[in-house]
Amino acid sequence: MTRAELFSQIQQKSSFLCVGLDPDLEKIPSHLKAESDPIFSFCREIIEQTADFAVAYKPNIAFFEALGPKGWESLQKVQEIIPKDIFTIADAKRGDIGNTSKLYAKAFFETMDFDSITVAPYMGKDSVTPFLEFENKWVILLALTSNMGSLDFQVIEDKEGKPLFLSVLEKSQAWGSPENLMFVVGATRGELIGEVRKAVPEHFFLVPGVGAQGGSLSEVAKYGMNSTCGLLVNSSRGIIYASGEKDFAKAARKEAEKLQIEMKGLLDLYLG
Amino acid sequence: MTRAELFSQIQQKSSFLCVGLDPDLEKIPSHLKAESDPIFSFCREIIEQTADFAVAYKPNIAFFEALGPKGWESLQKVQEIIPKDIFTIADAKRGDIGNTSKLYAKAFFETMDFDSITVAPYMGKDSVTPFLEFENKWVILLALTSNMGSLDFQVIEDKEGKPLFLSVLEKSQAWGSPENLMFVVGATRGELIGEVRKAVPEHFFLVPGVGAQGGSLSEVAKYGMNSTCGLLVNSSRGIIYASGEKDFAKAARKEAEKLQIEMKGLLDLYLG
Repeated sequence: MTRAELFSQIQQKSSFLCVGLDPDLEKIPSHLKAESDPIFSFCREIIEQTADFAVAYKPNIAFFEALGPKGWESLQKVQEIIPKDIFTIADAKRGDIGNTSKLYAKAFFETMDFDSITVAPYMGKDSVTPFLEFENKWVILLALTSNMGSLDFQVIEDKEGKPLFLSVLEKSQAWGSPENLMFVVGATRGELIGEVRKAVPEHFFLVPGVGAQGGSLSEVAKYGMNSTCGLLVNSSRGIIYASGEKDFAKAARKEAEKLQIEMKGLLDLYLG
Repeated sequence: MTRAELFSQIQQKSSFLCVGLDPDLEKIPSHLKAESDPIFSFCREIIEQTADFAVAYKPNIAFFEALGPKGWESLQKVQEIIPKDIFTIADAKRGDIGNTSKLYAKAFFETMDFDSITVAPYMGKDSVTPFLEFENKWVILLALTSNMGSLDFQVIEDKEGKPLFLSVLEKSQAWGSPENLMFVVGATRGELIGEVRKAVPEHFFLVPGVGAQGGSLSEVAKYGMNSTCGLLVNSSRGIIYASGEKDFAKAARKEAEKLQIEMKGLLDLYLG
């Protein structure tokens, strides 16, 4: 998918919502467990009920991988039923030496047909660029994550006072362009999103941490939105586990719609 | 596996060789392609011929993942045939927020039965500790890798002149112990291994980059060995692709034996 197509989708739906698919056998409604592929059935109903409001879906690969080869079959089926005009993110946090990253890229861009993959930056340029060689496919590089551990290394300042996450943003801009490189920028420290936006004015951000992890959507939009929106805000648990009963998909739809309405207000405010 | 068991294995075999299993369909001998599971057949023959000389096997997960669910079945079968007294490393470079790392740990330590997994440190403590909660299982944390891109971020110095990889080593020592935490320390910069060894005197290092990537085994031993050896030196391509013909496994055996003989000399020299 191109950046123009993604922005067009955002305008059509008045939404920049990404729905995170974290299908946990211990959390999905019990009536689904009798099905032949419970986590696929769960994701399918979530997708059917939220597709009106979502511009992206982000399967969290660990939840599938934990189930072995059968989990990978479920993942393939989930990827295949996501409507083609919706952006897909393999949340895999991969990254290895060049010949190995190339194979991870093959796994997610060829064996499966994801639009993008999340990548960890620690191993540097040659661990990232193999993912950027696929046409209309995207890298979403970890910059500033939303977890507690983000304070361990990502904010260490160099001799000029530049935190590591800014070095990652600056250096990696030479590896890709706003047409194939996004960044993970957590929402839990709102003021930092503005700092990141200054460093990378055009690139899209994938923003986790709104809702369950305490970030505020209006702060994210205030500090992070650019002229093509530039934001995909993810919500996982708040949507997919809104109810643990048979009405889970309808409950998910309601939560997704609530976020979309708030997003429409923010898009009108800043881009209207 | 415990550290004492690993060291005992090293003493018995007079070897600290780890054989990296990177089974590439484009590189394995063509006669294997007629088999029902070529990459499993390839790995099985390599393991049978090198097990006398290796104390660890390290399947590179990307090579299996690129093949989809069938690749994961091959990986499970490979893990299962590795002799139980040999240390197994899932070279997966995983790492995500706590609840997600927990599922990756489940995938590699429960769904499969690997002794260890390589983990990327960028997301900090809560992305690493879920892997450390499994008894007799190990995290092998990336510190200083052997690729070109290691120079992008890992050597950035903080205000006190401390490079990032040293911060990773120092901070992570509080998360685990020499009994469940190792570090990836590349061999391509020999003098740095000594610096790393000073920072973490007791922990095992997994050392890539010897051979194909240019590192020297004797330099690694000189600067890196400690009283329980403290080293697992990996060789992948140099062993498994020593021949591309029907004699590939015998050729792999020869290369593994060469390295083991060199390692015996170094163990005698420093620990004898």
